[in-house]
Amino acid sequence: MVTVGVDVGGTNIQVGLVGDDHTVVGRAKRPTPRKGPASVIEAVLDAIAGADGDAVDIGAVGIGIPGAVHGGEVVQVPNLAGWDGPVDIRTPIGEALGVPVVLGNDANVGLLGEWVAGAARGHDDVLGVWLGTGIGGGLILHGRPYDGSFGSAGEIGHVIVRAGGALCSCGRRGCVEAYAGRRMMAGAARAMVEAGRSTDLFDIQRDEGKSRPTSKVWARALDEEDELATQLFDAAIDAIAVGVGSVVNLLDVSLVVVGGGMAEKLGQDLADRIFEASRPWMLHPNPKLSFAVSALGDDAGVVGAAALARAEVISG
Amino acid sequence: MVTVGVDVGGTNIQVGLVGDDHTVVGRAKRPTPRKGPASVIEAVLDAIAGADGDAVDIGAVGIGIPGAVHGGEVVQVPNLAGWDGPVDIRTPIGEALGVPVVLGNDANVGLLGEWVAGAARGHDDVLGVWLGTGIGGGLILHGRPYDGSFGSAGEIGHVIVRAGGALCSCGRRGCVEAYAGRRMMAGAARAMVEAGRSTDLFDIQRDEGKSRPTSKVWARALDEEDELATQLFDAAIDAIAVGVGSVVNLLDVSLVVVGGGMAEKLGQDLADRIFEASRPWMLHPNPKLSFAVSALGDDAGVVGAAALARAEVISG
Repeated sequence: MVTVGVDVGGTNIQVGLVGDDHTVVGRAKRPTPRKGPASVIEAVLDAIAGADGDAVDIGAVGIGIPGAVHGGEVVQVPNLAGWDGPVDIRTPIGEALGVPVVLGNDANVGLLGEWVAGAARGHDDVLGVWLGTGIGGGLILHGRPYDGSFGSAGEIGHVIVRAGGALCSCGRRGCVEAYAGRRMMAGAARAMVEAGRSTDLFDIQRDEGKSRPTSKVWARALDEEDELATQLFDAAIDAIAVGVGSVVNLLDVSLVVVGGGMAEKLGQDLADRIFEASRPWMLHPNPKLSFAVSALGDDAGVVGAAALARAEVISG
Repeated sequence: MVTVGVDVGGTNIQVGLVGDDHTVVGRAKRPTPRKGPASVIEAVLDAIAGADGDAVDIGAVGIGIPGAVHGGEVVQVPNLAGWDGPVDIRTPIGEALGVPVVLGNDANVGLLGEWVAGAARGHDDVLGVWLGTGIGGGLILHGRPYDGSFGSAGEIGHVIVRAGGALCSCGRRGCVEAYAGRRMMAGAARAMVEAGRSTDLFDIQRDEGKSRPTSKVWARALDEEDELATQLFDAAIDAIAVGVGSVVNLLDVSLVVVGGGMAEKLGQDLADRIFEASRPWMLHPNPKLSFAVSALGDDAGVVGAAALARAEVISG
């Protein structure tokens, strides 16, 4: 029997049919509709059918969504258009497919994927840092996924590193995401260009046929040693380092996993660089503390979502 | 049968004989010796005898110590003189008394006391913030005390709120403790006096017969509306608020317990003030999030240390 893992992102919905050994045996991808929950539900069902989900025996569906999940409902989805207030997407998808549906936060679920089948296997205390348009995070604590008292734990992107500092997409000032989220980095680059600085970032974006600077665009700009891109990236690393240092002081994890679009493009070098930059901020870390880049890459979300569904259906 | 709880502080060692219902049935206090582990072990044994520990049937001893504890050893004790490298204080105390001895971090253990018998009863996800000479912290996560992968979790005092900001006792810049630890606040007050500012803080200190500004001294200065003391205290609240906001975003706790010397003097007002100041930094907290001052006060440490010993001896 396979479990369906669904990763609802700001740009794409990815679906994987995942076997009990956590391998992905079928997949499909759809653009994320911007017309609210009903359109997303439709796209998820279409993607599941597209991954050949109609042809196999499905046990359960797990869905990772970029927001807070509590009591089986999506409580808050800051990065998708048209999601206001709590939404039940479990019931319609469950009824359409006739199987149990379980929801989780996308970054939490991504780390769960790494924990069951990737870079975090065998670790009991793990921080996951997901670097993309925004910055998500996940936690494994005491050998169990940790999602907090109301389903919104793991927001490493909104750990404050410089109170009153740079403006963040959440409206506060000084969060990690304010410096290191791709959306805010692109905004800063645009402002600097308006202020007279030059950069190849937006030429590379056009050259790659993208509507905004993606991780691939940033990686190329860094590789070409673009000065402004490098400066913004250095500031991003600094902010991530302080946030990760704070979390290590608070949680004494034994592993930090770095994932998301930027990690896919930059690999273990990115994890190493964050480790090096965050070490000076640590008080007395585990001497065996290590940093690893995501091993599953783009599949972490679907593998983790399937694992979440499997765990809840078996335990429930 | 009673369990002995020991709270080793920078100034005093407190011992409590604690019943199975978490009530303290006997107690003693000794100044903390500054001549290293052997002198502390001697003082602990003397205090246990002084609390009438010789006359009752002791099941186990729990000790909270201001440092990191791993594998039953005290790994690091930044705030006690003469403790270099890992020290085994369990074996000599256990051999002297003929009972099992269990160690924990003092702030972790203080929160454990509040969890079994005080302000945190019934909560599964709790942050404890202990405000004293330094700033300690404790965590209950998923309904279990959390001490991390190497025994050093809970360091809310070294969550960074303003990277590169005020100098902290740990040598870094911008930690919560840099602004809100009593030692660093007193240092800032002295520097301001040297720079020409005036304050009654040190007159109050002399009047109270203290060698440095204690929580009582600060409370009096605040009560008398001393301008410099108020300014430094406001800055302390701001820093604690940012640190607590970061932790709520990361861990989504349902309760924050505020304890330690400052909390004893200022009561629930302090917890309320920290809640109010930290709320603007929170992304999507549990709607039922609450802040409470320590209910056990000075007894939190001994009650928690006894509870730790009872739990570990029972669980094997």
